[in-house]
Amino acid sequence: MAQKPSIPKGTRDFSPAEVAKRNYIFSIIKSNFEKFGFQPIETPSFENSETLMGKYGEEGDRLIFKILNSGDYLSKADTTHLENKDSLKLTSQISEKALRYDLTVPFARYVVQHQNEIEFPFKRYQIQPVWRADRPQKGRFREFFQCDADVVGSNSLWQEVELVQLYDSVFSQLGLNGVTIKINNRKILSGIAEVIGASDKLIDFTVALDKLDKIGEDGVKKEMLEKGISEEAIVKVQPLFNFTGSINQKIEKLAALLSTSEEGMKGVEELTFICENVTELGLQTANLDLDVTLARGLNYYTGAIFEVGAPKGVAMGSIGGGGRYDDLTGIFGLKNMSGVGISFGLDRIALVIEELKLFPETVTATSKALFLNFGDAEAKYAMKAISQLRKNGLKVEMYPDNAKIGKQFQHADKRGIPFAVVVGEDEMKNNLFSLKNLATGEQQKVDFATLVTLMK
Amino acid sequence: MAQKPSIPKGTRDFSPAEVAKRNYIFSIIKSNFEKFGFQPIETPSFENSETLMGKYGEEGDRLIFKILNSGDYLSKADTTHLENKDSLKLTSQISEKALRYDLTVPFARYVVQHQNEIEFPFKRYQIQPVWRADRPQKGRFREFFQCDADVVGSNSLWQEVELVQLYDSVFSQLGLNGVTIKINNRKILSGIAEVIGASDKLIDFTVALDKLDKIGEDGVKKEMLEKGISEEAIVKVQPLFNFTGSINQKIEKLAALLSTSEEGMKGVEELTFICENVTELGLQTANLDLDVTLARGLNYYTGAIFEVGAPKGVAMGSIGGGGRYDDLTGIFGLKNMSGVGISFGLDRIALVIEELKLFPETVTATSKALFLNFGDAEAKYAMKAISQLRKNGLKVEMYPDNAKIGKQFQHADKRGIPFAVVVGEDEMKNNLFSLKNLATGEQQKVDFATLVTLMK
Repeated sequence: MAQKPSIPKGTRDFSPAEVAKRNYIFSIIKSNFEKFGFQPIETPSFENSETLMGKYGEEGDRLIFKILNSGDYLSKADTTHLENKDSLKLTSQISEKALRYDLTVPFARYVVQHQNEIEFPFKRYQIQPVWRADRPQKGRFREFFQCDADVVGSNSLWQEVELVQLYDSVFSQLGLNGVTIKINNRKILSGIAEVIGASDKLIDFTVALDKLDKIGEDGVKKEMLEKGISEEAIVKVQPLFNFTGSINQKIEKLAALLSTSEEGMKGVEELTFICENVTELGLQTANLDLDVTLARGLNYYTGAIFEVGAPKGVAMGSIGGGGRYDDLTGIFGLKNMSGVGISFGLDRIALVIEELKLFPETVTATSKALFLNFGDAEAKYAMKAISQLRKNGLKVEMYPDNAKIGKQFQHADKRGIPFAVVVGEDEMKNNLFSLKNLATGEQQKVDFATLVTLMK
Repeated sequence: MAQKPSIPKGTRDFSPAEVAKRNYIFSIIKSNFEKFGFQPIETPSFENSETLMGKYGEEGDRLIFKILNSGDYLSKADTTHLENKDSLKLTSQISEKALRYDLTVPFARYVVQHQNEIEFPFKRYQIQPVWRADRPQKGRFREFFQCDADVVGSNSLWQEVELVQLYDSVFSQLGLNGVTIKINNRKILSGIAEVIGASDKLIDFTVALDKLDKIGEDGVKKEMLEKGISEEAIVKVQPLFNFTGSINQKIEKLAALLSTSEEGMKGVEELTFICENVTELGLQTANLDLDVTLARGLNYYTGAIFEVGAPKGVAMGSIGGGGRYDDLTGIFGLKNMSGVGISFGLDRIALVIEELKLFPETVTATSKALFLNFGDAEAKYAMKAISQLRKNGLKVEMYPDNAKIGKQFQHADKRGIPFAVVVGEDEMKNNLFSLKNLATGEQQKVDFATLVTLMK
């Protein structure tokens, strides 16, 4: 029986035009990764479940797609779990593999597994899909690409400097001028926690502070008090309520605020190094900004934290993020291996470029010319020319069937092919080709050499 | 606890050098697909199970990786199946999605689902991984890429002609000269079945005939008789036992042999058109050969059948294959949509190129120069040059840490980086750079403009 075909929710088919646009973004990201010395690796789509489980928290574990064991997978399953319909306990008995949830954990696994072949510091990039059983919604998919660049095996803050430059280089080349690269440091956040006297209140604190624009200083303070942050602590961090000015001014405020916190001052020192050098080396089109409310993956990062905001005027969440994690590979038994990296959010970047109409027209260019088909003799004549044109690197094709001429022209039109080549008896006799510009309607008879020239 | 990290059997990690080599092959395949007018599409990694199940036979169904439903997947499962540990019957109740098994069925699904947006004839290519729960062995993986080009919506035999040219173009550009593109036609096989008087014996017949080189004519005939093919039939197809000569001679033999079979003669006609035109248009380095034992996916193809053999002297199975299937999309309810396509076997192609040492050295080229790091002031000076070099499109990097000089040189060496740039006090004072060729040991002091020139 015929089925009405569909695809699983949260997944997508990509048409030729969509693939072309995505490949345009990929190729710019990739060439910049390589300019900055990163090398590509690829890891399997599925990993052993124990590699992934427990690495992303309870919620993460739930969102990992599990692959059913092959064959008679129930034979070794615990009868009690089956009788109790205990999905949770049964899972590990009937599923040993799971789809990649991100690229960072597989990278950590790769580094540990191949540590003897790798020359450290290791700058790797990885552009592959990941899968999450999230509830699909606008801009959130169950299958999507991540584009990650990470360095492992060096504590040098020059990496952070270069990663900011890398963001700037990619977004500038994409024409996305004026993105904001927000930077923060986990040690600054720890310092603030010390100052407010409670590290367990840090998330409540930053969440509240982040609402400053929306609910004003009084609103933020009210929320902080409600969350159990003391009046005394709020007074201490008063400078954060008016946290404006240049990066240097902001760093000065932080230095004053965190002077009693050793870790906080280490954060100030790191921020100073990164921001000074980025400023001195210069950015092409991006803006660097210090944002003390930035706390992506708080339990994960240990140093710098990055997030990139789309150019002003575009309503879109972050289009990139990253940071430093001092113990990337510890979960797999390799200690003291510091990592720092950034990620590009392909889908959102594509949406922003689409909205700003920044895709070059050439990106979706298809064949340069369609040779019309007037029958086998004419087709053979055309195919000889086509073979030569292709050897010249040109994208050309012939309409495969001897269909009505109107239909063939229409095909070129619908496909966005700019030229049609008409070959009839007359052209064959004189060894010529009629080249028709489908935009202007202009037509001329030319020899093969001229055809090559005109089409190049 | 630390885990000893590993990956699932049948899957692979790809190192930077391996990714670079694979991308080299992909990019040549891709650029040729596009020169021939094919456009890329991409489909999701997993499909609804009903899209895939039943399309590849019973064995195929078994080899499809199923994805466990998320959440409390057992809640709606049939208690009887659980009690009986009936894996087969439970599967469809706890799994609704499955990983792509090939690219052809998802393509057929795509065509039907998007038929109103597609301009036919539709020439699409697709380069994506597929997954099969096969027993892993040398050269057979559970995750591997397929590279497919198909045309749907045209019966024209010019497609077959072009697909032969496409194979030739790709393998020639890869330097794999002298591949053999074997061609056959399902209608020839049907004709032979008619002549031997039993279509159910056709597979036995071709399998036996295929052993001619190994076991000789007598051996083959003995096997045929054992399989129940009559002496009379064997006499009739005697010409197949001495099936040598040029393609034209082979076609003549077939025409004589199959003169009583209408379908067989249609096959002869199709083969004649394809082979004549391919020969007249010329191939760059490949050889076209007619192989009547070629029967890939017999139940699948309805016209031309293709298979590509590696250059002589390389022990390797087929490195590509394809054919025409008259009713590609019928399984999803869209009738009368003929398709024809070919596939490239990436893994085997990579093995052959490796064995013949045909990968260009430049493929695995990493950064052009490593700037050594002598401390923050020197590093800053180096980073200014590096930023400019990258804007010039050059791949360069700095050793991130102020490590021992020997270690830094060793890093360049191990990474295969050809140049080191040394920046000390002296260079900084005079606005120069010491460029060291690591292969020759030659070192010279140059200004920035010369540095750019030398490195390009």
